[in-house]
Amino acid sequence: MNTTTRRQFLRSVGRVAGPTAMYGAMAQLGLAHAGTPGKTFALDGGLKGAHRGERVLVLGAGVAGLVSALELQRAGYQVEILEYNQRPGGRSWTLRGGDRYTELGGATQECRFDKGQYLNPGPWRIPYHHHGVLSYCKQLGVPLQPFVQVNHNAYLHSQRAFGGKPQRMREIAADFNGSIDELLAKVVQQHQLDQPLDNDDQARLLDALREMGALDREYRLRAGPQVSERRGYVRDAGGGADGRPQDSQPMGLSDVLRSGLWRQLSNGMNYEFQMPLFQPVGGMDAIPRALARQLPGRIRYGRRVAAIAQDEHGVTVSHQAVGPDGRASGPMQQSKAAWCVCALPLSVLGQLDLGGFSAAVQEAIEAVPYAASVKIGLQFKRRFWEEDEAIYGGISYTDLPIQLIGYPNYDFQARGGVLLGAYSWGPNAFEYSAMAPADRVRHALAQGAKIHPQYPAEFLSGVSVAWHRSPFTLGCFALWDEPTRARHYDTLCTMDRRIVLAGEHASYLPAWQEGAVLSAHNAIEQLHRRALAA
Amino acid sequence: MNTTTRRQFLRSVGRVAGPTAMYGAMAQLGLAHAGTPGKTFALDGGLKGAHRGERVLVLGAGVAGLVSALELQRAGYQVEILEYNQRPGGRSWTLRGGDRYTELGGATQECRFDKGQYLNPGPWRIPYHHHGVLSYCKQLGVPLQPFVQVNHNAYLHSQRAFGGKPQRMREIAADFNGSIDELLAKVVQQHQLDQPLDNDDQARLLDALREMGALDREYRLRAGPQVSERRGYVRDAGGGADGRPQDSQPMGLSDVLRSGLWRQLSNGMNYEFQMPLFQPVGGMDAIPRALARQLPGRIRYGRRVAAIAQDEHGVTVSHQAVGPDGRASGPMQQSKAAWCVCALPLSVLGQLDLGGFSAAVQEAIEAVPYAASVKIGLQFKRRFWEEDEAIYGGISYTDLPIQLIGYPNYDFQARGGVLLGAYSWGPNAFEYSAMAPADRVRHALAQGAKIHPQYPAEFLSGVSVAWHRSPFTLGCFALWDEPTRARHYDTLCTMDRRIVLAGEHASYLPAWQEGAVLSAHNAIEQLHRRALAA
Repeated sequence: MNTTTRRQFLRSVGRVAGPTAMYGAMAQLGLAHAGTPGKTFALDGGLKGAHRGERVLVLGAGVAGLVSALELQRAGYQVEILEYNQRPGGRSWTLRGGDRYTELGGATQECRFDKGQYLNPGPWRIPYHHHGVLSYCKQLGVPLQPFVQVNHNAYLHSQRAFGGKPQRMREIAADFNGSIDELLAKVVQQHQLDQPLDNDDQARLLDALREMGALDREYRLRAGPQVSERRGYVRDAGGGADGRPQDSQPMGLSDVLRSGLWRQLSNGMNYEFQMPLFQPVGGMDAIPRALARQLPGRIRYGRRVAAIAQDEHGVTVSHQAVGPDGRASGPMQQSKAAWCVCALPLSVLGQLDLGGFSAAVQEAIEAVPYAASVKIGLQFKRRFWEEDEAIYGGISYTDLPIQLIGYPNYDFQARGGVLLGAYSWGPNAFEYSAMAPADRVRHALAQGAKIHPQYPAEFLSGVSVAWHRSPFTLGCFALWDEPTRARHYDTLCTMDRRIVLAGEHASYLPAWQEGAVLSAHNAIEQLHRRALAA
Repeated sequence: MNTTTRRQFLRSVGRVAGPTAMYGAMAQLGLAHAGTPGKTFALDGGLKGAHRGERVLVLGAGVAGLVSALELQRAGYQVEILEYNQRPGGRSWTLRGGDRYTELGGATQECRFDKGQYLNPGPWRIPYHHHGVLSYCKQLGVPLQPFVQVNHNAYLHSQRAFGGKPQRMREIAADFNGSIDELLAKVVQQHQLDQPLDNDDQARLLDALREMGALDREYRLRAGPQVSERRGYVRDAGGGADGRPQDSQPMGLSDVLRSGLWRQLSNGMNYEFQMPLFQPVGGMDAIPRALARQLPGRIRYGRRVAAIAQDEHGVTVSHQAVGPDGRASGPMQQSKAAWCVCALPLSVLGQLDLGGFSAAVQEAIEAVPYAASVKIGLQFKRRFWEEDEAIYGGISYTDLPIQLIGYPNYDFQARGGVLLGAYSWGPNAFEYSAMAPADRVRHALAQGAKIHPQYPAEFLSGVSVAWHRSPFTLGCFALWDEPTRARHYDTLCTMDRRIVLAGEHASYLPAWQEGAVLSAHNAIEQLHRRALAA
């Protein structure tokens, strides 16, 4: 069916059976799709005649708000965005030298990174299957570069294993895989498999185990060229008569198991962290800034929303000027519109004066806690991780409170660089949140020095974002559990009269920008249907 | 011991015991090292007094020749390089729109790629542990970007499996790993392990198998969120009420084993192919061009070496002008020097008139065959691999004669792009080498269309390099086997009177630029010791 016919069909469904039935029909028509590669989102048909220029208020210029506003504007709506910060992006944010940031409690940090260096305190990577985010990067010309998620030469570290000495990921990976495959090969050779694999398959399995585990001809994991080609050499191959490589010795399975370091090996196998991932060149805020450039004059920065009210005729939002220090001042203003996309985090929304919301939506807003997270960026004079340890990008994992160290995936072999010195969750994040910013940096330095002893000599400056102290989010992301989702999620995602919520919290991709994008698409499709059906 | 003392010690060793003893002493002093991160190579001490300005002829301006010449120049030698091509780099080469290339047999291709697009017909990636190459990139300001070796969303393809339908690498990886881990978990649960793992270790092993294999609570590989988070979803997570992801179903172990596709899974685990790898921004020839810029006026391009002769006083090389079409013309000229670094491939060297070489070295030169390899670059109007299939960089593997398809690791989401449409070895490479260039492209297009049916509609132009038809190498790289290496390698790498050989063939890193760099270091260290001892 063509576009006009399809819209007519949907309108008729909406009139007869109400919005829920219409939604089901939409889904069957394949309009409310999750992201698909190569598809550019567009609201179906756009507005005609009397509807053209209908006003929509968008609350929050994070990724969900920006995408909502851009697509609504493309479809012919007149949009106005109210944004707390003096910049677009919300959590999609980049800190650079000269930036100042005041957190809850009043502590102000000034970032003192050198030119060209940055920290993405919020999202920092884009999986290859986040088609929505990638589509906006393509449409708006945001250049991407690979984000090195898996670095076989980075460290796995535990205070309780190997005397606290960091191990190279390639060594743990090779020895774990090889040991497992050696064990299973022995079982197959002893004909102990009760799984129905015929003789040919058992022979294939032995081949596969030897190949995958780097086992020798007798299916053993032993020092030799096979396993050195996985875990690395005592001495690398070189040139000339003196260049013969020297094999390394795998460790025993028990050592690997007891170290617990195998827990980090599966990281890069998970769908969200499979290579390749990407980052915008120069910082994640390239994405919201590119979106914002499409909305000239439509974003009012430094406006703190105080109240949202709706009735059958429209939506009224009260808001006040707010400075970079978080102080609201000046008169309360009101903005009115026919419709509203509310892309504020639930943590903020739950603290506002809400009028005309259904009881179920209000309950849903208050039901979802927000995860705690802290990122700490540390600039060093010298890229000792590259120069001394040959770690170019990627991540080292540790059981220290810093949890990981992220290496810059840009400007390889430059002189200085910014490490992600901590990316903490849960209890570690609460502890860091309770510290003053300078103490967070000091603590991360002391901890990280257990992995990189070069820290004290090379340190220049640090900056941190504790998301529970962020005045514009009051937390990191919506921490859904299954019971809460079963009870509240569909309500939260369904348009409530003239207001529809959007953001990562209204998606099955929590904490990801892609969740914000796809939630925005879903929200404005609902709004658009209502507007057309009105 | 300080530099002067060390040199005196080495000279005295050289005088008393001869060069072989001296070499051993050098190695013990740690001078003849393989590449080390963060170390910048320098010849020890440099030349003084009468030695300063001593002439060295370097044959070949590939990576080995360029590095030899640069480091000799830095130490005070006067270098002259003779190079067959009109450009530096040898096999370290980049083809761009407008480039012309005449192969043996006289076929000339003109590359018609769009501006900014390129093919690296020789080396195309730099492992993180190739410290020598990385050091020159750093010293000379060659910017690097990640080379996506492992792409979980790229294809594994066999004509004989799954009806010829390409499979996503993540699916084969998840199902293989999960099946193996499920099998072993069953054995552990049934207490059939005869390996001495105590109860605690067996419990840890079960935890690890569940985690690594994405098994469920009962250690089974079954459709569900765990395994979907590895192999991908039937429908990805999305936004709004409709966004629930739909789990995928793993295939059975027998299907994976019989497909043979598991053979490609270990690729990214091998030391040379572990992430991260790198490529110079804009093409591999950025490296030789940066090296050549350090040698102004020292490289004579378009000179074909015809004869090399040495005696106790020096080296004489006869050479003639050669055009881009491979035709030699004009008078034979002679260059003379005290010493010579010969960085020509053995395949070329074996065809020259050699005078004054030891019989053992001549035998070694003739003993090593060269591997056949062909690369075919194909430019397309549109990046359908990205737009339609979400494959951003990396490699798809196939059992077709093209062997693999390499996707560009730069300018992601640009309009057009150049694929590596074939990278063939062995018999496949010989077949491609026997074809006319246009037929190679046609064949690669027809084969690749079995994986990417968009090929015919989107094709623009192609170019190929069959290394056995390259007039400046006559093959791809030195194909050492262990018996040949045992018999000839040390001889080949040891300075023969006034001539020392360099190149990937004189290393334990065949086919890699790092082999050329480390071979060059080793060669000029020998030369320098001889010069100082003379």
